[in-house]
Amino acid sequence: MQSVIRVELPEQSYDIAIASGSLDQLGEQCSGLSLGKKVLVVSNPVVFKHYGGIAIASLKSAGFDVYTCILPAGERYKTLNSIQKIYDVALEHRLERSSTMVALGGGVIGDMTGFAAATWLRGINFVQVPTTLLAMVDASVGGKTGVNHPQGKNLIGAFYQPRLVLIDPEILKTLPVREFRAGMAEVIKYGVIWDAGLFSQMEESKRLDQMRYLNEGLLTEILNKSCQAKADVVSKDEKEAGLRAILNYGHTIGHAVESLTGYRIVNHGEAVGIGMVAAGEIAVHLQLWDQESTQRQDALIKKAGLPTRLPAGLDLDAIADVLQTDKKVKAGKVRFILPTQIGVVTITDEVPADVIRQVLHQMQAA
Amino acid sequence: MQSVIRVELPEQSYDIAIASGSLDQLGEQCSGLSLGKKVLVVSNPVVFKHYGGIAIASLKSAGFDVYTCILPAGERYKTLNSIQKIYDVALEHRLERSSTMVALGGGVIGDMTGFAAATWLRGINFVQVPTTLLAMVDASVGGKTGVNHPQGKNLIGAFYQPRLVLIDPEILKTLPVREFRAGMAEVIKYGVIWDAGLFSQMEESKRLDQMRYLNEGLLTEILNKSCQAKADVVSKDEKEAGLRAILNYGHTIGHAVESLTGYRIVNHGEAVGIGMVAAGEIAVHLQLWDQESTQRQDALIKKAGLPTRLPAGLDLDAIADVLQTDKKVKAGKVRFILPTQIGVVTITDEVPADVIRQVLHQMQAA
Repeated sequence: MQSVIRVELPEQSYDIAIASGSLDQLGEQCSGLSLGKKVLVVSNPVVFKHYGGIAIASLKSAGFDVYTCILPAGERYKTLNSIQKIYDVALEHRLERSSTMVALGGGVIGDMTGFAAATWLRGINFVQVPTTLLAMVDASVGGKTGVNHPQGKNLIGAFYQPRLVLIDPEILKTLPVREFRAGMAEVIKYGVIWDAGLFSQMEESKRLDQMRYLNEGLLTEILNKSCQAKADVVSKDEKEAGLRAILNYGHTIGHAVESLTGYRIVNHGEAVGIGMVAAGEIAVHLQLWDQESTQRQDALIKKAGLPTRLPAGLDLDAIADVLQTDKKVKAGKVRFILPTQIGVVTITDEVPADVIRQVLHQMQAA
Repeated sequence: MQSVIRVELPEQSYDIAIASGSLDQLGEQCSGLSLGKKVLVVSNPVVFKHYGGIAIASLKSAGFDVYTCILPAGERYKTLNSIQKIYDVALEHRLERSSTMVALGGGVIGDMTGFAAATWLRGINFVQVPTTLLAMVDASVGGKTGVNHPQGKNLIGAFYQPRLVLIDPEILKTLPVREFRAGMAEVIKYGVIWDAGLFSQMEESKRLDQMRYLNEGLLTEILNKSCQAKADVVSKDEKEAGLRAILNYGHTIGHAVESLTGYRIVNHGEAVGIGMVAAGEIAVHLQLWDQESTQRQDALIKKAGLPTRLPAGLDLDAIADVLQTDKKVKAGKVRFILPTQIGVVTITDEVPADVIRQVLHQMQAA
């Protein structure tokens, strides 16, 4: 059974199509979008080995000419250098304005492919086929694309919407456990910022740390409700003028942690988990929400097998410094998304530096 | 006296403000746009030496914090490498989403600054202060930004609109003659594709090859009518879905000539002049317009001191090959803009390869 979530935007709306086993209908789904004949599939070696064959066969049988660009896996390759490799392949096969780039991979591949599609010939078609839970529920929806600057995450990029997001939950069966948990961090985020019902459903599940412990109904709910939450927020505020900022819950300190550990020690989801714990504690300090709520949140994060403390050896001054380079800084003030109850958050740039420091100090590895 | 041309676009409209001696009102003009406090002025050494001081003083006296990034002059520096330099300065001074990049220079500086502004933090404010005739009448209006790929011009880029275009004709007094002529190529283009009145006004002028031979009234007409033509076309078709393509008149072969000569032998305007002569001849071969019109066009191009023949030593096969990498190629067919009468053009991808070759052969240097 397929569920379709429509992301309504002023310039270009698109569907998120969620259905088990749908990867082999990729070509068919693309056929309905009036795309040109040429398709460039961008992926990484691991994902491509598992799913490249199915994706390409499906596209070819729908009549597309298919080319590939395989980039090394990992956040540290999310650079302008990788984008240049995509450009080179695009040039080699003479991609045209009507051509399409398909991102077959996780958030890193999706962000880079989207940015390359946004900037090749000033913008060609773009289709997302996310292969991680994180990319399915977050990165592939909403049009944020880009790469890292050596000194900061996602500093270079563009808002650019896909024509289609195709989500096949079957793909998650080969996802490493650690990657699954990383995705759960974003799912928990939607529970805290937007959907108290989803939060409760996850509380009812005995375990959340591996996909095989989730019943199929819960997985479907997780995918649908997360994508719906993101679609709701993005439709209301595509370019992050206001509301959309709530999606950055847990990301302010999360990004700093990722950046300072060179994108190697903790992955994005783990960093967001840590960032949510920090944001929750800050909210308690500022008396925005209560101890019980923050404990419920932290319990869910732990149940998903995610860390709730800072990685060992992180310098608190360095974190404070990196916070100043965050995209969300305005007039020198760091912007925080803080919870007020399960399902509701507020945006503030009035968090005293000593509160941040105190919370981070509590969270240092024992 | 200031004239203001409004470019109406669905997402963001903006003004082109044209007034003699207005550079020292840059800060004041920016103040009305609700920009953040930080402004990064991007320029090249020659332009900056002449006009950097006035621009910066004006911005500072309006209360802005001003930083600068000076890039080497010339089309061959219009690369991702230069963009990375802008990113580095943006990071150094912690530019924020509300900050602004000001392009103070010609088309190369404008295209690069616009692309950097489009992609830094997924888009910050952007103001154009064009300092060449070419940039005033063409590059600064319409939102095309980007850089060259080693193997093709403007293959990398984005559509990104400025918040303001400030045009001060006084600046043209220091413009080298060859640069002035290059700008006249685009002005003649507007005459051929859109504004027969402008075309006639230029025919009436005794000389067009140096600014000092133009009476002030004609220069004002040239700036106003050219910007108005561009604004009209861009407002109707921001992302080049159809009509906007007519602005590429003369550019199909022009780009190939520029690219094959390494952006060194002929400049952009000269290449467009050559491209218009070629397009005119192709149109005659296809019986789309008459010999008299093509002669009137070529006479105007010559009167502006522009070349009407291919640079020596260009290989015709190489031109044919480069045409295939043009952004305007669709399903392998090269798209041409061809004139049907002075002031009117048509778009076609049905130009036989042997006609192109025959015309280029005629146009080879004696």
